[in-house]
This record gives sequence, structure tokens and C-alpha cells, in this order.
Amino acid sequence: MGGDPTPRGDFAVLTDADLAAFREILGDDNVRTDARSLDACNEDWMRKYRGNAGVLLLPARTSQVSAILRHCNARGLAVVPQGGNTGLVGGGVPVHDEIVLGMRRMNAVLSVDPVAGTVVCEAGCVLEDLEHALNARGMTAPLDLGAKGRCQIGGNVSTNAGGLRLVRHGSLHGSVLGLEVCTADGTVLDLLRTLRKDNTGYDLKQLFIGAEGTLGVVTKVAMLAPRKPTGVDVAVCAVGSFDDAVATLRDARAKLGDCLQAFEFFDRASLDLVLSTLRGARDPLPKTRAPFYVVTETAVFGEGGGAGAGSVTHRAARRRVLAWVRSLTKRGVVIDGVVGEDSRHASALWNLRERISVALKHAGAVYKYDVSLPTERMYDLVVETRNRLAASTSASTSASTSFDASKVSVLGYGHLGDGNLHLNVSSPDGYHPALEAILEPFVYEWTAEQRGSISAEHGIGAMKPRELAHSKDEASIEAMRRVKEVFDPRGILNPYKVLPPRSTEHRSKL
Amino acid sequence: MGGDPTPRGDFAVLTDADLAAFREILGDDNVRTDARSLDACNEDWMRKYRGNAGVLLLPARTSQVSAILRHCNARGLAVVPQGGNTGLVGGGVPVHDEIVLGMRRMNAVLSVDPVAGTVVCEAGCVLEDLEHALNARGMTAPLDLGAKGRCQIGGNVSTNAGGLRLVRHGSLHGSVLGLEVCTADGTVLDLLRTLRKDNTGYDLKQLFIGAEGTLGVVTKVAMLAPRKPTGVDVAVCAVGSFDDAVATLRDARAKLGDCLQAFEFFDRASLDLVLSTLRGARDPLPKTRAPFYVVTETAVFGEGGGAGAGSVTHRAARRRVLAWVRSLTKRGVVIDGVVGEDSRHASALWNLRERISVALKHAGAVYKYDVSLPTERMYDLVVETRNRLAASTSASTSASTSFDASKVSVLGYGHLGDGNLHLNVSSPDGYHPALEAILEPFVYEWTAEQRGSISAEHGIGAMKPRELAHSKDEASIEAMRRVKEVFDPRGILNPYKVLPPRSTEHRSKL
Repeated sequence: MGGDPTPRGDFAVLTDADLAAFREILGDDNVRTDARSLDACNEDWMRKYRGNAGVLLLPARTSQVSAILRHCNARGLAVVPQGGNTGLVGGGVPVHDEIVLGMRRMNAVLSVDPVAGTVVCEAGCVLEDLEHALNARGMTAPLDLGAKGRCQIGGNVSTNAGGLRLVRHGSLHGSVLGLEVCTADGTVLDLLRTLRKDNTGYDLKQLFIGAEGTLGVVTKVAMLAPRKPTGVDVAVCAVGSFDDAVATLRDARAKLGDCLQAFEFFDRASLDLVLSTLRGARDPLPKTRAPFYVVTETAVFGEGGGAGAGSVTHRAARRRVLAWVRSLTKRGVVIDGVVGEDSRHASALWNLRERISVALKHAGAVYKYDVSLPTERMYDLVVETRNRLAASTSASTSASTSFDASKVSVLGYGHLGDGNLHLNVSSPDGYHPALEAILEPFVYEWTAEQRGSISAEHGIGAMKPRELAHSKDEASIEAMRRVKEVFDPRGILNPYKVLPPRSTEHRSKL
Repeated sequence: MGGDPTPRGDFAVLTDADLAAFREILGDDNVRTDARSLDACNEDWMRKYRGNAGVLLLPARTSQVSAILRHCNARGLAVVPQGGNTGLVGGGVPVHDEIVLGMRRMNAVLSVDPVAGTVVCEAGCVLEDLEHALNARGMTAPLDLGAKGRCQIGGNVSTNAGGLRLVRHGSLHGSVLGLEVCTADGTVLDLLRTLRKDNTGYDLKQLFIGAEGTLGVVTKVAMLAPRKPTGVDVAVCAVGSFDDAVATLRDARAKLGDCLQAFEFFDRASLDLVLSTLRGARDPLPKTRAPFYVVTETAVFGEGGGAGAGSVTHRAARRRVLAWVRSLTKRGVVIDGVVGEDSRHASALWNLRERISVALKHAGAVYKYDVSLPTERMYDLVVETRNRLAASTSASTSASTSFDASKVSVLGYGHLGDGNLHLNVSSPDGYHPALEAILEPFVYEWTAEQRGSISAEHGIGAMKPRELAHSKDEASIEAMRRVKEVFDPRGILNPYKVLPPRSTEHRSKL
């Protein structure tokens, strides 16, 4: 999307000899060339990006990943590592005929240490499976996202996934303790430690967190696994303005800060879409029709631990949240609020926020933007986008507008506690270049003006390499290119992604 | 220390023309060549490492740092960036005649944002000054260490300092949001953002966190600044064994986890040293003479915030800690415990742990090791070291033992909650090669056998480059060398530090 299609790089073309070599490494069953396998791995979840890979490889061990990369690097064959294929920027599917390296067979949880609070697993482990394994030991994964039923840890790490509980657990740059990584020529970097502190040389693993598979293939992950709360309370509050949503955040930080796990928001357009699209969804506060809603999740620890000394009962914690909502309502910051009465009710409340993305997909084509902005200004981008859309369609009622603007809706929701807005433009009757031209580069330029980030958590992928300069200066981008050359000198790993092509032939000085 | 002295690299020698160029950039006052300035910057805090710099440069702006580095890189002059000079591995002082780049004039707090919970400051800002600036806005720095009165933020970042409250705030890899860095040729990388989420390309700033000034000079830092607790409670518990100390940690995680800020320990030898060396230090539990003591700090939030809803009073929190200590005593995990009655008492309890390092310095020469180990096995290293010392001295009572073993004492203390042991060998009558030979490489080899880290938080500096291979494999070290070449191709930045010299002439494949 956006600009000219990226031309194919100067990579080798897959041959029968290559396939034979892969079969030697993996066995016949794990070298897939059937239409069904290829269809599934060539297209992304949103059906927005589509490549033309001729083979899907399914390694089961690090040594196999290493052998595959060694072969591909020697031959000059391009490779796309693929996890659960739930990315939103086309980072996990081929652009041309890159070989797809599917990680799903490497899905073992290797060790769980409840005393140290750490876990080690293979990269292809599905986040929800890891969560279940940890829950059984009273622990939880340090991240949670809507795609947890399909996304894989290796993909989470490679995209530096943020998700719903970053407010509590912080980013993966803090939670990941160690990685095992295969670089382009098959070298295995053993950076897999479970130590909380380790200052022995450059922290190389950090480079692979968020590199979207362009520097190496993550094969194993060690990370912090915090205690699982013994209970959580979810509250949804309706507020009359975005300023009131921010005031609610400020108050939550002050009053609930030590147990706040998540602080999310969505606008009325998002709620309306969920209510009209998803079965079973109900208005959380049917007596109020507010422009904004905030969702808080607070954690309770200690109950059921037996001793009781030092622990807080869930009942006391719930009273605390109720009192907080009531005090905000009394002060007029919040119009009305509801606290989940039991875990089922709490889930229903969470679903209103968590399933907006699914509702959008049901509705049809959608332009997704994921930006970080100063908290107070976050929603201005949604308003500006709506204004721009209204202005441009009223200005050109002629045939030059190739889409029906009345069907397009602009939604704003996201992680208010992290300053992370998801701006979504839903276009039920498909993608339109004229609509895209209204949105881009406008969204990126507006974000850059606020010194925001054009990708808060989704990454750059195939969607935004040409936009990277809106968030990083040329010296930094050049330094990234040099780092890429260290780990992948032939550029075979996930080409066309993350880094923009060099604009001029001469290499500028770092 | 250890092995042959490192030969001087092939760098240029400082000339009058260089000094004139520096005066042009900085003004005469900030190009120091007087004996007093040079003495202070050539020697480390412990008086263990000493270099022979001919000039101390004191820039006040990033543009001056950039101009200095541009000059030095062009001329091939080596440079050591220096913060508060409180490092423990000789990373901040010259080895030979490197130019010292003192950051102390760049000490401004540039912005504090209480809503976003972020702060931006210059690299030379002293940690305690930053803490005071943040306290005034109800915030706190995301790290705290004994050296806070002298150490600088740029040094903290460059050494990935851990310190006392990592249990609560996590590592700087999670807390640092942005950096401004000058690389060797004077290029300024503007990675200074205050966004909590920013997935736009490789997270280059992570490389400079813990690189000890070998990849670039950190000039500005943006980081998370959490809410300052409205109160804290400090408890010291005496326990009968190291296993009981670990059991206390496990229980604290379960019962106090959501408000636990620090979990430290020290052994009896450490306490005895503090009591005999530091004025005003008192035994916290004079009726008990226990082999181990643990220190916990718990935070209270919300009191004084006015509204009361959702907040916890300090009195209630203190009751909770008291009940916890009592329940452990009742169960026999803890022999006896004390909770600080007021802030003065709490400080006195903290000082017992925090000032061990100062007491050691008063006592004379000290061999300091800073390792990460599996929590349960942490103290085994102290026991093994004592055994080894006893065995080697009884085996050689002759003149070959050049030190008086009866004067040597082995202390163990550290950050139990992080699995980080500080093993200290105090040798009041000086450093002895024969003693060092008993300790090294033994300590590193033992640690490597447990898959521990030979530097948990102090770094590698000038002390441990040759030991790096105990914690990182050759492929990873080679990748580090390549990364070094990206940012500092001539190797002028803090040479002889962090990376070991290549053992063979041929460059192994990554």
C-alpha cells in the first residue's frame, strides 16, 4: 500500500535442488509446497498483504533453523520468518517469492521457575498456551494481547508487542531476559539466560526485540513471568470528553497506581461498531450515551495464599475500585461507571475493548494506524482525520472521489495509559487509493509534528519503511543499515521490511 | 588487575595543537591540564585503577561533545567519557593517556512531565539532584544506588546500573525511553523521545545502555519517572540460614509482591564490619546474633492525595508489614525482625545494607565481585571462596604466601530479589597477587558453571574484558566487535574496556 510496489531484490530463485536440500534437513513432511499451505502462509490475517512464496519450511529445532539459513545465505535465497501471522503491517508474509520459515513446530515450554519468576520457551509457542502453562504455576506472561490465541512468542519478541498490560509489566525490552537467535549465515547466538541482571558486554538481544525478523530468527525466549493476580477488577467508565478520559487516567495513577494493570479507552464509534457487529455484545452503561469510555483493570494479590498476613482480599480490593469510580462520578469527572460483578461480567466488559479489532475486520477493509502521541493530544488526530475526510469529500463530489464517504467511519481507541492511539478508518466496500491519499502521509506527518511515533507497537513491516523517516533521523536510519549489515550482510532476512531503501547511491557517513 | 598489563593502542599522542583546538571549542577554562584536575580524573574511587591522561575536557553542550569527538576521531586520539567516577571496574578512568571527557557541566534537568510520568535530563546530572527535582513533583527516579550523591545519569545509563530498587522498577532497558548519543566521529543520534511505546526500526538506544561509553557518549537521557511513594516501610529480619533468607523472599513475593520495592540481604561478616567501622551504626536486633539478615522495603501510595478513595494509609500498610514479619517469626522462618518506626529509623536500617561498600573501603583494599547466580545457590560461592582461601593458606604456610590470611575476610551481601551477589574479599593490608590468584579465575569459572553472569551490574570495564568469555560465547563476542566497528570504526572510544582483544589475527566468521 502507498507508493510504487517494491521491486524484487536480486535474490536467487528457488530450485528443485534447494527443495531437496530442505527435505534433507527437515524431512519431506516439513517442506510444504501444496496450495493450501502456501495460500495460508502467503497472506496476512487482514488479507491486505499477499506474497508469492513457493515453499513453507517447518523446522522443529534450532539446528534445523541454522541449517536452513546457512543454505539460504550461501545461495542468496530470501527468507521470511513467520509466527502466528497475526501482524498488522505485513511484516510476516512474503512481498515477492521469499521462502517462509514457519516456527509453529517449535512450541515447547522448556522450563518454568516459580521462585525466580522466569520462563523459557521456544519461539513458536502460542502466547495463550504459554499463559496456561504459567497460570498452572501461579504465574502469568508479561504481556497479553487480543491475538493471544494465535500469536507466537517469537513473533511477540520480534515485533516488541505491547498489548493490554504494558501499564503493569512494561515493555519486552525490560521483560525479556534472554534469547537464542540464528543470524543470517546460520550462526546461533546463545544469549539465552534467565538472569535478571547481566552486564556482560553489549546487550545484543535487545537488537532482536522489535527487529521484525530482519536481523535474525528468534528460536528461544527467556523472560520474566510475574505472579498471576489472584483476582482482577475491571471497570468501564463513561466520560463526557477526551479531557475527562485523561483526567480519569491521572486520578487512576494517583489512586490505583500500585495495582493498575491496564488503562484503555474507546470512543462511541468503536462501541457502536462492536454492538452492531458482534453477537452478545451489550452496552455496558445503557442509560448513558457518552462520547468516550475508559476501561481499567486492577489486580489483587495474596488472597488464597493461606496466611492472610499482608494479603488483600478480593472483596476489599473491589470495594476500593467501586469507591474510586463513585468518587469520580461525584466529582463529575465520570458520567457513570460499572465494575464487573464476577469474572464473566469482567470478561464481557473487557471484550468491548478487546474485540474492536475483530469487529473492524468483520466490517470490511480497514486502514489501521498505530501511533504514540502526547496523551493530551492523542484524540486530536482522530478529530483532524474526520475533518480532513469531510473536507475532501465535500470539495470533490465529482467522479474523482472513487469511494462513498458516507460509508467510511473513523474510530479511535487504544492504550491511553501508554499514550498509544489506534486510529482506524473502516471502509466496508474496500480499499481505495483516493481514500488512502487522504490518510497518508497526513497521519504520519501530523504524528511527526507532535514528536510522536508512527508505530507505537505494530512495527514497520512492509507497510511503513518509507515512512520511517517521520520518526527517526537519517543518521539513526543509516546506523540501523550498518547494524543490519553486521547480522545479515547479504540482506536475505525479511527483505523489503523495516528499513527504507537507500535514497541515493553514495553511503552517507554515519 | 589480573594478567599482563594491556599494551597501549596505536593512538595519536596529545599535542599543543590538539589543546589549542579543544580551547577553541570549549574556552580555556574547560580544558584542564593542572595536576589537581588530572589527579582526580585519572584515578578511580577505589584507588585501584590509575591512568595517565594529559587533559580533562569539560563540555557544556552536545555540540561541544560532538566537536571534540570529531577532532579526536580525525586525529586518532583515544577518549574516556567520565561521569561521577564511582564505577567499580575501572571503566571510567584512562588506562594509558586517553583524553578524559568529563560530563559534569551538562547537568540540567530539561523537562519533567508528571502526567506522562517522564523526565528528560542531561547526562551529567547527578542522580541525587535528579531525585530531588523529581520528588518536588511527586515523582521518583527509576533507580537508586549507594553512589547517588556523586554518580551521574549518563554513567548510570552507560553502565546499566541496577541498584537497590530494581525489584520494583526493573532494569534501565525498560525505564530509559530515549537517548541522545554522540558516536565516535561526532555524529549525533537523536533517539531522545519520551514515548512509552515506539516501534520504529531497531531500538538502537538499547545498545548504548550498558556499553560503558565504548559505542558513543550519552549526552541526554529521557526516562520513566514513577510516582514517588507517599511512605515506605523498611524491615530487617534475622534468619538462621541462607535457605531461610530465600524462603523469606518467596514469602515476600507472595504476600507483599505488589508493593515490594527492594529485597536485600547481608551476612553476619558484613554486619560486623559495618558495626565496627562506621560511626553510629547499631545492631538492628541486638538480642540475636544471626548468620544472615534480609532487608525489605515496601511502598505506600495514595495517602495525602486528599480524596482517600482507593488510597491506602501508611498506618495500614505498616500494620501489614508488621503482620507479615510476625507471621514469619511464628512459622520459624525468621528468628526475629524489626520494622522501622519512623523515617529516621528506616534510614538507619537501610544504612546497614547500603553502607557496607563504604565500610569495606574504610577497611582497606578489597577485591569486589558482582555476579548473578540462581537464587538458591548464591551464597554457595561465598562459602566456597572461604573454603578455598582456608585450604590454600593451610597448604602453604611458607614464604610463598605473601599475605596474612588471618586478616582477610570474605563477605557476602547483595540484591537477593535480583539473584545478584556482591562477593567482597577485604584485605586490609593491601592487594596481593597471591591472594588474587586464589580468587581469579576461580570466581569467574564457578559462576560460569552455574550459567551465572560474571558481571550482574558493575559492568566489564578495564577489570574483566579477558573474563567476558565466561558469560558470552565467541559468536556473541564477535558480533559485539562488529557492532563496535559500526559506531567507532577507529576504536577511539574508551579503548581497552569491555571487549577482549581478538585472540587470533584472522577474523572468525560471525
